Amino acid sequence: MTQAVQMLHSDSSSPAAQGMQPMRVGLLGLGVVGGGTWTVLARNAEEIARRAGRRIEVARIAVRDVEKARSKVGEGVEVSTDGHALVRDPRIDIVVELIGGDTLARELVLEAIAQGKHVVTANKALLAKHGNEIFAAASARGVMVAFEAAVAGGIPIIKAIREGLTANRIQWVAGIINGTTNFILSEMRSRGLPFADVLAEAQRLGYAEADPTFDVEGVDAAHKLTLLASLAFGVPVQFDRAYIEGISQLAQEDISHAERLGYRIKLLGITKRRAEGIELRVHPALVPAERLLANVEGAMNAVLVRGDAVGPTLYYGQGAGEEPTASAVVADLVDVTRLHTADPGNRVPHLAFQPEALSDVQILPIEQVSTSYYLRVRVDDQPGVLADIARILADRGISIGSMIQQPSHIGGADLIFLTHEAREGDVDQAIAEIEATSFVRSKLTRLRVEHLS
Amino acid sequence: MTQAVQMLHSDSSSPAAQGMQPMRVGLLGLGVVGGGTWTVLARNAEEIARRAGRRIEVARIAVRDVEKARSKVGEGVEVSTDGHALVRDPRIDIVVELIGGDTLARELVLEAIAQGKHVVTANKALLAKHGNEIFAAASARGVMVAFEAAVAGGIPIIKAIREGLTANRIQWVAGIINGTTNFILSEMRSRGLPFADVLAEAQRLGYAEADPTFDVEGVDAAHKLTLLASLAFGVPVQFDRAYIEGISQLAQEDISHAERLGYRIKLLGITKRRAEGIELRVHPALVPAERLLANVEGAMNAVLVRGDAVGPTLYYGQGAGEEPTASAVVADLVDVTRLHTADPGNRVPHLAFQPEALSDVQILPIEQVSTSYYLRVRVDDQPGVLADIARILADRGISIGSMIQQPSHIGGADLIFLTHEAREGDVDQAIAEIEATSFVRSKLTRLRVEHLS
Repeated sequence: MTQAVQMLHSDSSSPAAQGMQPMRVGLLGLGVVGGGTWTVLARNAEEIARRAGRRIEVARIAVRDVEKARSKVGEGVEVSTDGHALVRDPRIDIVVELIGGDTLARELVLEAIAQGKHVVTANKALLAKHGNEIFAAASARGVMVAFEAAVAGGIPIIKAIREGLTANRIQWVAGIINGTTNFILSEMRSRGLPFADVLAEAQRLGYAEADPTFDVEGVDAAHKLTLLASLAFGVPVQFDRAYIEGISQLAQEDISHAERLGYRIKLLGITKRRAEGIELRVHPALVPAERLLANVEGAMNAVLVRGDAVGPTLYYGQGAGEEPTASAVVADLVDVTRLHTADPGNRVPHLAFQPEALSDVQILPIEQVSTSYYLRVRVDDQPGVLADIARILADRGISIGSMIQQPSHIGGADLIFLTHEAREGDVDQAIAEIEATSFVRSKLTRLRVEHLS
Repeated sequence: MTQAVQMLHSDSSSPAAQGMQPMRVGLLGLGVVGGGTWTVLARNAEEIARRAGRRIEVARIAVRDVEKARSKVGEGVEVSTDGHALVRDPRIDIVVELIGGDTLARELVLEAIAQGKHVVTANKALLAKHGNEIFAAASARGVMVAFEAAVAGGIPIIKAIREGLTANRIQWVAGIINGTTNFILSEMRSRGLPFADVLAEAQRLGYAEADPTFDVEGVDAAHKLTLLASLAFGVPVQFDRAYIEGISQLAQEDISHAERLGYRIKLLGITKRRAEGIELRVHPALVPAERLLANVEGAMNAVLVRGDAVGPTLYYGQGAGEEPTASAVVADLVDVTRLHTADPGNRVPHLAFQPEALSDVQILPIEQVSTSYYLRVRVDDQPGVLADIARILADRGISIGSMIQQPSHIGGADLIFLTHEAREGDVDQAIAEIEATSFVRSKLTRLRVEHLS
């Protein structure tokens, strides 16, 4: 038995945790994540106090439906419909915003900051659109806005980039940051079903919303990616500059072709530092099947970060759901509890870089992005076609890495090309030229290929 | 362009970073990790200052060979052989200990703490053995001892557990935390070579030391696991209680059998919370081939953590090497820089839990561990043998999940069993009884099976 062991109290509720005032939390919203936060704070109260040095207590809740909330939390806590009163309540130390949207949420978050309260939020849409305003207000007022739950649920990816990789010039971040689309893509591949069928099933299982647009068209992933780009490169949040392409147009046959070529298709959020600016893009991409990222299946999330010193690091876990997301909310509460007495000028900056040291490096338009491409086109099965297409590509400086040809059962043949790295604008022009030839029978399908090395 | 962008300086060296005094670092040791730390701090000085709010500068170095150090760092920094003078130097804010070992290192770290200096170290052996003493001294003196580089190199796993997963009652941690052994196991599997051949090659390539005992016998992994267990469960470091078994006795044929059964063999560090106490063990283990952890190849590291709220999360990256390890050292320097003005009582605790709230839950002896088992034994090829072995196992409450039998080319037959979960002490007794039967021709080979679910 070591010396330190003998000094221990066997009772795990320490004097420090007992003697100090609890941190008092006001909860805006008690839906899936709010309910999870309530449950986790209650169930693990002891363990959390042993870590945080004091208890963390929900002192007040604001919801639309008070009766419903009461049935969850009982009588011991104040529940009302008045969010404004909650953020003004002098007994509240930290406001947790879990109502979503960016109108009332923005108003209440700014009001909480003005009242000198720390804020924890899971609201990626709010921060992707109004983050600059909110972080500036928080810095001016000397309070923290913590948002680990806004990206990749319970995976501590924001902390990893903001604090764990600070030694690095980060080169790129590539992530599976939307569970709904990863579930759909996993099912399309493993069961050979088309998008529409799998989406319907995902809706039945609760993995996809009744209106799935936000997820399947890549908007949710782009909100999260916007925050990751700011953390990685020290630029303000610029959601309006993101290129966004979802998976609703993805054909089952491209998933099969990709697999035969040794790739899997994932919806990736990618942000990359280039000499000319920063790439910020969400789209389906072919990933080599042997990469860990290609093997992240179902509703799981994973983010791969490449730094110049550390090389590649990967972070994997559940990106959504009641308790995984609550795990991130509560971790932020503990962080704020541990750090709220620290000199505001020396705290961890919201966007990883000191506010006055943010960079104005531009986000590149998609035409200036460079990557590799998968091109599929149906053509007449006649001599010279391949030569003509290869010539069009070569004229734009696009070189072909590999090609497969397969006869179509409805006549003609499908040609599939994998290119080496090329500029998107050049590929756009080559595609237009190929589609204008007389031997092409269909629109060309273009997907991007990410080697992640 | 958003409002915040317009407020930016295009010059990335911010007024804050320029106006404040740099943090002055004293480097004890300039070997692989020390050299990497020097390189990364110099190359990314600008980016690091933008994050930390001030420059971080190596002001003094102590090494054994001053000439050699000079050839690396030039003339601008004070280099001597006197570590004691360095830790007493009033100009130094943070001491980085990278000399290794636990004699002089312990002395210098304790002296630095006594001098009121923060300490950053990559020394897992030191902390696994003397962590309780060192952390207690640091807490009493109000300084930080940061050790991200001590476990899994550049992967921010300590930060993830200590700060990212604070909401959770952590259930278990299982990690590939030694790159040398993972490289050897990967090569043994993919090339079908025996341990000794691959070890020799690893030594040629610089993946293994001339005396590889520390790595291949699991001691290095056990040092790291000891720290992870403390962070996960809030117990003092207790390296002397760890069960340690390396890979030097692992037979090539067991790797092949495992593969046929759908498993891969990895050297895992496992620590698990049970009602009766905490498991703390390093040994080779069969892992289902479809798990991400089974697909971590070569010298890479990965740690899987299961929390009650977040579920499983995984952290992957380079666990050793000059710049990956330096990445963690420098991240700690940035952390200390950001937090050194914080009230010591409110800082992140060294072992994730408040010192006065550490628990005295016992580490279980290996006989009380519960897991599944792979058992291989060579027997006479005659009727009744299988029935007798099954009876011996059943008598100890050990049930068989699957069995394969294969004739041996030197006569007799090999029987391979996968058991359901059983208590190690019961398995020990069953093994002794099986080995005592008349039909058994060899010692029984026992490996543990971890489903990680």
